[in-house]
Amino acid sequence: MFRTKYSLPKTQPQLQGQGAQETVSTAPTQLRYSRYDHGTLEEFKASSVDEIPDPTPGGPVLWVEVDGLRDTALLQALGDRFGLHPLALEDVLNVGQRPKVEPYETHLFIVLQMMSMQGEHEISREQVALFLGPGFLISIEEDPLTDTFKPVHEKLRSGRGLIRKNGADYLTYAIIDAVVDQQFPLLEHLGEALDMLDTEVVKSPSQRHVQELHECKRLLAHLRRFVWPEREVISALLHDESGLLKAETKVYLRDCYDHTVQIMDLIESYRDMASGNMEMYLSSVALRTNEIMRVLTVISSIFIPLTFLAGVWGMNFQPDNQGQALSWNMPELRHPYGYPICIVIMVAVALFQLFYFRRKKWL
Amino acid sequence: MFRTKYSLPKTQPQLQGQGAQETVSTAPTQLRYSRYDHGTLEEFKASSVDEIPDPTPGGPVLWVEVDGLRDTALLQALGDRFGLHPLALEDVLNVGQRPKVEPYETHLFIVLQMMSMQGEHEISREQVALFLGPGFLISIEEDPLTDTFKPVHEKLRSGRGLIRKNGADYLTYAIIDAVVDQQFPLLEHLGEALDMLDTEVVKSPSQRHVQELHECKRLLAHLRRFVWPEREVISALLHDESGLLKAETKVYLRDCYDHTVQIMDLIESYRDMASGNMEMYLSSVALRTNEIMRVLTVISSIFIPLTFLAGVWGMNFQPDNQGQALSWNMPELRHPYGYPICIVIMVAVALFQLFYFRRKKWL
Amino acid sequence: MFRTKYSLPKTQPQLQGQGAQETVSTAPTQLRYSRYDHGTLEEFKASSVDEIPDPTPGGPVLWVEVDGLRDTALLQALGDRFGLHPLALEDVLNVGQRPKVEPYETHLFIVLQMMSMQGEHEISREQVALFLGPGFLISIEEDPLTDTFKPVHEKLRSGRGLIRKNGADYLTYAIIDAVVDQQFPLLEHLGEALDMLDTEVVKSPSQRHVQELHECKRLLAHLRRFVWPEREVISALLHDESGLLKAETKVYLRDCYDHTVQIMDLIESYRDMASGNMEMYLSSVALRTNEIMRVLTVISSIFIPLTFLAGVWGMNFQPDNQGQALSWNMPELRHPYGYPICIVIMVAVALFQLFYFRRKKWL
Amino acid sequence: MFRTKYSLPKTQPQLQGQGAQETVSTAPTQLRYSRYDHGTLEEFKASSVDEIPDPTPGGPVLWVEVDGLRDTALLQALGDRFGLHPLALEDVLNVGQRPKVEPYETHLFIVLQMMSMQGEHEISREQVALFLGPGFLISIEEDPLTDTFKPVHEKLRSGRGLIRKNGADYLTYAIIDAVVDQQFPLLEHLGEALDMLDTEVVKSPSQRHVQELHECKRLLAHLRRFVWPEREVISALLHDESGLLKAETKVYLRDCYDHTVQIMDLIESYRDMASGNMEMYLSSVALRTNEIMRVLTVISSIFIPLTFLAGVWGMNFQPDNQGQALSWNMPELRHPYGYPICIVIMVAVALFQLFYFRRKKWL
Amino acid sequence: MFRTKYSLPKTQPQLQGQGAQETVSTAPTQLRYSRYDHGTLEEFKASSVDEIPDPTPGGPVLWVEVDGLRDTALLQALGDRFGLHPLALEDVLNVGQRPKVEPYETHLFIVLQMMSMQGEHEISREQVALFLGPGFLISIEEDPLTDTFKPVHEKLRSGRGLIRKNGADYLTYAIIDAVVDQQFPLLEHLGEALDMLDTEVVKSPSQRHVQELHECKRLLAHLRRFVWPEREVISALLHDESGLLKAETKVYLRDCYDHTVQIMDLIESYRDMASGNMEMYLSSVALRTNEIMRVLTVISSIFIPLTFLAGVWGMNFQPDNQGQALSWNMPELRHPYGYPICIVIMVAVALFQLFYFRRKKWL
Repeated sequence: MFRTKYSLPKTQPQLQGQGAQETVSTAPTQLRYSRYDHGTLEEFKASSVDEIPDPTPGGPVLWVEVDGLRDTALLQALGDRFGLHPLALEDVLNVGQRPKVEPYETHLFIVLQMMSMQGEHEISREQVALFLGPGFLISIEEDPLTDTFKPVHEKLRSGRGLIRKNGADYLTYAIIDAVVDQQFPLLEHLGEALDMLDTEVVKSPSQRHVQELHECKRLLAHLRRFVWPEREVISALLHDESGLLKAETKVYLRDCYDHTVQIMDLIESYRDMASGNMEMYLSSVALRTNEIMRVLTVISSIFIPLTFLAGVWGMNFQPDNQGQALSWNMPELRHPYGYPICIVIMVAVALFQLFYFRRKKWL
Repeated sequence: MFRTKYSLPKTQPQLQGQGAQETVSTAPTQLRYSRYDHGTLEEFKASSVDEIPDPTPGGPVLWVEVDGLRDTALLQALGDRFGLHPLALEDVLNVGQRPKVEPYETHLFIVLQMMSMQGEHEISREQVALFLGPGFLISIEEDPLTDTFKPVHEKLRSGRGLIRKNGADYLTYAIIDAVVDQQFPLLEHLGEALDMLDTEVVKSPSQRHVQELHECKRLLAHLRRFVWPEREVISALLHDESGLLKAETKVYLRDCYDHTVQIMDLIESYRDMASGNMEMYLSSVALRTNEIMRVLTVISSIFIPLTFLAGVWGMNFQPDNQGQALSWNMPELRHPYGYPICIVIMVAVALFQLFYFRRKKWL
Repeated sequence: MFRTKYSLPKTQPQLQGQGAQETVSTAPTQLRYSRYDHGTLEEFKASSVDEIPDPTPGGPVLWVEVDGLRDTALLQALGDRFGLHPLALEDVLNVGQRPKVEPYETHLFIVLQMMSMQGEHEISREQVALFLGPGFLISIEEDPLTDTFKPVHEKLRSGRGLIRKNGADYLTYAIIDAVVDQQFPLLEHLGEALDMLDTEVVKSPSQRHVQELHECKRLLAHLRRFVWPEREVISALLHDESGLLKAETKVYLRDCYDHTVQIMDLIESYRDMASGNMEMYLSSVALRTNEIMRVLTVISSIFIPLTFLAGVWGMNFQPDNQGQALSWNMPELRHPYGYPICIVIMVAVALFQLFYFRRKKWL
Repeated sequence: MFRTKYSLPKTQPQLQGQGAQETVSTAPTQLRYSRYDHGTLEEFKASSVDEIPDPTPGGPVLWVEVDGLRDTALLQALGDRFGLHPLALEDVLNVGQRPKVEPYETHLFIVLQMMSMQGEHEISREQVALFLGPGFLISIEEDPLTDTFKPVHEKLRSGRGLIRKNGADYLTYAIIDAVVDQQFPLLEHLGEALDMLDTEVVKSPSQRHVQELHECKRLLAHLRRFVWPEREVISALLHDESGLLKAETKVYLRDCYDHTVQIMDLIESYRDMASGNMEMYLSSVALRTNEIMRVLTVISSIFIPLTFLAGVWGMNFQPDNQGQALSWNMPELRHPYGYPICIVIMVAVALFQLFYFRRKKWL
Repeated sequence: MFRTKYSLPKTQPQLQGQGAQETVSTAPTQLRYSRYDHGTLEEFKASSVDEIPDPTPGGPVLWVEVDGLRDTALLQALGDRFGLHPLALEDVLNVGQRPKVEPYETHLFIVLQMMSMQGEHEISREQVALFLGPGFLISIEEDPLTDTFKPVHEKLRSGRGLIRKNGADYLTYAIIDAVVDQQFPLLEHLGEALDMLDTEVVKSPSQRHVQELHECKRLLAHLRRFVWPEREVISALLHDESGLLKAETKVYLRDCYDHTVQIMDLIESYRDMASGNMEMYLSSVALRTNEIMRVLTVISSIFIPLTFLAGVWGMNFQPDNQGQALSWNMPELRHPYGYPICIVIMVAVALFQLFYFRRKKWL
């Protein structure tokens, strides 16, 4: 069965005066940073923005990670320190936003939404905001409890692959790639649920299937709303002319773009499957109703006239006082072969109807 | 429950000869103006157009507010004073228009439609027309009773934010932003109504739900008709080359544009939800009919043949005068175990049918 | 109720050899012309093309009006006189054409379709062909009986407005505007019909509503087929580079363009309304069938088993000749409290079923 | 009734090794050619390609006609003689292709499909391939039995019109025009069939109508598949820059283009009509089922309880041996007014139900 | 009947760390290469990459074939030898990918998906990856057991046609052409299945048809997902500017492009057919239900009231002890003509109803 604990997030942007605290996770905000180049990797926890070193364009890559949106003062301090645009900082706080990329003078601002499976049945959505500047990347996650960038950290620590040999732009690619690829297990789960529904809906259609289908469709519509602009984001990065993204990194982003196209393709075919499934369900219910009606009609049509006949001969019309057989009142009841003839008539009526229904192909 | 007092406005433009008085609010038209720069803010009520000072490009910003469309003479005077194009003035009077932006030689003419919740269940639509010229902004509201620009006035008076530091173009942005953001509460209301319908429609489908769904869809279609061109309006302002909008203001308008995109996204998912809801409703009704039919068929099919049998043995065929058991007329009635055998036959027929219906999964 | 006398016109172009006389109005063709400038206005009826003066580019505007397509010789003469292209003249005769604009070397050829209400329930379509050349405009109407250009003539005669101050291009605008605006009353009529159907279809769905909806949809589809290219026509005129249309006139045409966009919007929302209406109707019928079935099922299911019981105890199995109570044949009939116990059993069965149906929410 | 002998052609291109003989007409291939200029017209039958004179660019127009695809050797010889591209020759043999235009170095290759009525109910499709080179046109028809180009030949022979005064490009236009215009009678036939179905489907819906609708829709889908690329073909010719088509001819092709647009419009409205028709049919069937159910429910609901009552009083419970009226077993049967009271009760039940059903508007 | 052993492939790309071995064929990977020019053709089996000669741009064409994806080391070695991009090699291992073309510095990378019939009912999908470099083509097939490129090898060996006279780009065309054309038999099979369903669904609609239709639609959706990007691939090759594809080869690719357009057309019309089929099925079921209901209603409505009447006269109300005819209790039973009159009443009721139902056209 397909069950999810996921519910459509409210995507209304917060009004400027209000804080974002009530809708976001209540766990405390964490601040970490890493510095690495080809040879070295340093990882630190920081308690304030001041501990973070200055980025050195051309030197080691500085990756500042903020986990959780509760501490708006920290975000503000970060914004002041790295010259982040106030509108972008405001967008960071509005969770559930449409993915987008905004070029500012000194940095690129990227918003992504990550839909992923958490455990068996739970589906979570997390907003990831990225600021890519010369020599640094700031990543801000909505939920401090999830460990979204674990695969990226592992790659960094292992020192294998290209990540340590490249700059902040390749790190950006690695994070986007992690976000995009986390949607595949979710889609696979959806695909399996739809496949299962496909066979079940024909065997025994029930309202539960419709609800599950509905749930799948809603989730697909939701995914689509996030993946579509995600594709635009990557496409915009591919055509970015700010110089923050090197041509070699764009080759890898192109691969990432292909993945979003593939996800869109999967979503579209799953939507098709869900519609086909619904159609199957409805046609199956219609056919079952039809079959039920047929049985009712055949049985009723055969026995109702017979019951009428039995009722007629069950009437109490009384012969003349003499009780003689030639009275006008139901003389057949007193005929020596009345009953056998009556049975023959009934069987004849029944056979005629059976023949008629068979010709109509209702039997 | 979802109830609205809103009805689709007639969007037919008035023919030229006719006045617009009958369709618009009958409250008297009010005229106000404000002048402000970084340091000062003056607000005045005016009784005639002549009291309004000349705009000073580069100097303090002049904001002329007209509330209500009843006093067409005042509008005419305003048009003469500020050199507004006659076609634009005509459009101001045609309420319920498609949002648009028209560049004229000396000014930009912007028409917006504001859909918003008034109280609990009422939904109102108001047309806002803006004339943006060098150093001045003229705003014309349809309904003098609503206080549409209250948040803008508050920002002006508080002196905080960027509004007092910028020109008439930023004021235009602030007004457009206020108009766009007022649609979010309405959408939230719609979303909640649809969410509620979603669960109710499965529990107990009734014609009332269809009507509410229908109402929601109509409202969504309506919103869409206004938001779509609103997006185009903001996009056109972003690409405006009249010089009336500064590049810094356009950064903020871009944010506003994102909001309209988000509203379009929400409208689309609500439309999807409404269709899915309708589908659920129909499938639910079909399944209920099917279930009802099943019960009717099972009970009828079992008892109708049995009733026929009872009817047969309730017939009054009479044995020979001698009343002897060997007559052809219903000898079974006189058999010592006739009744128990008859009961056994009936039970056998019923059991056979129960078995048959169970195999068909109708039980 | 929504009734129209309108039927989909045959839009097949006439083959070249055939005349167009059989499909067009049989009233005789009329020829008129007007000459006007800022100060003067002359109006004439002409019997032949020769009476028409030569157009004077830069001088007074010459407006030649042909009413009716019957007199093809007159059209031919007109074509020769003003150098109209033979293909354009052929198009004039093919009524029910798709609106279009064709630039020829010396003139612009414009075809429009005017859908309008005639009286209460009749809807008419008329083709208007315009030839705009330097200093002259030739207008050719399909039906001599309608008075399509009355508002234009009135504006000319009154001398107010801009029409007398401008050239043949403004006259073209005025005519297009009159054609476009005549569609608003028709749409209003349609909107009212749909609004009425909307409420009626829920109260008492009947096949008549479906037919009326069908009629509305057909008319909307038809309108759409004409308005869509009309919009293209105006757009093409806005981007015309023949020099026949002045920039000032284009400002007015832009307004006209807005009207067609608004008409398209209205048509789309009416189409949405009609589909929603149909959906309501179908769901309403489905629910009614469901309700009817429920009543039938409840009553049948309760009484059919009871009738069976009554039938059982109405059987005529006879006790032993001794008529003693201990016989196997229906001893209960002879039990002193047989009847009250039977009634109790029947009531119990009925109550059980009522309880069951209430739990199923069928009652 | 709408009956056609037309079946969807297999549009699979032949694999290279196979010949095309089995799918095309078996009548022998015919070869003809005409030469004409303003003053002269010569028409010849040819038995081999060698008899055909060389084309003279600027001189008289050479029109080579091949009727039938059976003689592939002839086609090969023709290709060698006129330098036709092998891929184009291959395409000629693949009947049922998508219309297209291919520019080759020395010639234009055009494929068209002609759908037309043959007699009353038969619809045929024929592929027409054209090679337009300097001073010559080669036309290759699929079926030697049809006389597709009769109207073109007649125009040539009559010497009227522009055809004799122009070159091979105008001849190309004339042929395309003939192909396009032959679709109008077919569409008219379809439109009439749909109009008839429209009224019949409401009067007496039957499965036959659905089948006819289905047939119409299939044919429309088919036509659309051919007309859509045909439009592209003409559009491509309008923008052709090979110099083979003169500007004057393009004016006429534009007219032809308008016709294809009009055909697309018609096809779209017929598709709309067919869908509306289907909707009407389904709603009509649903309403009829509803009405039938209503009658069944009213009659069953009234008489089933009454029959039960009659059954009760038809039971054979027997009074005490004494037969005295005060026994517990059915004393009412022995009440002097038992029967009238029973009738009154039955009438009351029936009236109550009638009242109830009338309030539910089922009567 | 339409049965396929095909199931939707999982199109999820493999995560980088994992091998691709579990999802691909387990047969051992094979390595072959061919060298050919106009005069010579050499074919070799190779056990390692080192045996393959260097490509000679301008000299004989080198075609390296890899059959099966199991031996990733071999693929890696091939990549190192020919300088293939690591991302492209990764894509080779991800089976079931979206077809695409990627230009790398020294070579073009092309991914295609081949859907084809295997035997009667089995449908297979195989991924084909091509690397086109100067003077060489590397083709990598997913499944070593299929003999996908047999027609290309045959053409090479026969020495006929253009393949031996051209370079690696023409070989690429030949392979793409083979991949595209293998889809035609599959489509023909689908078309025949749909044609058969079309006639069967009307004769005897059953759930089996819906399932088959569903299967067809799924397969069509699937094909479409592969053909659409295949078309883009060929279009990209047509506009390729790397110089690897000669203009003469592009003429042939254009023909290949036409084939994909034709396949898309076929898929679209088959989808239309399937929807129409479904519609027919549903309307057919609705009509059958309607017809069944009609029979039930007519028989029930006629006999239920008659049975009631028989029940009434079967009641046991007893006359006064005197048994005299004038008692209030059922005197009609003792009337000499009671029974004939009762029969007359019953026949009258039945006739009235028959008349009523005939007027309603239910008979």
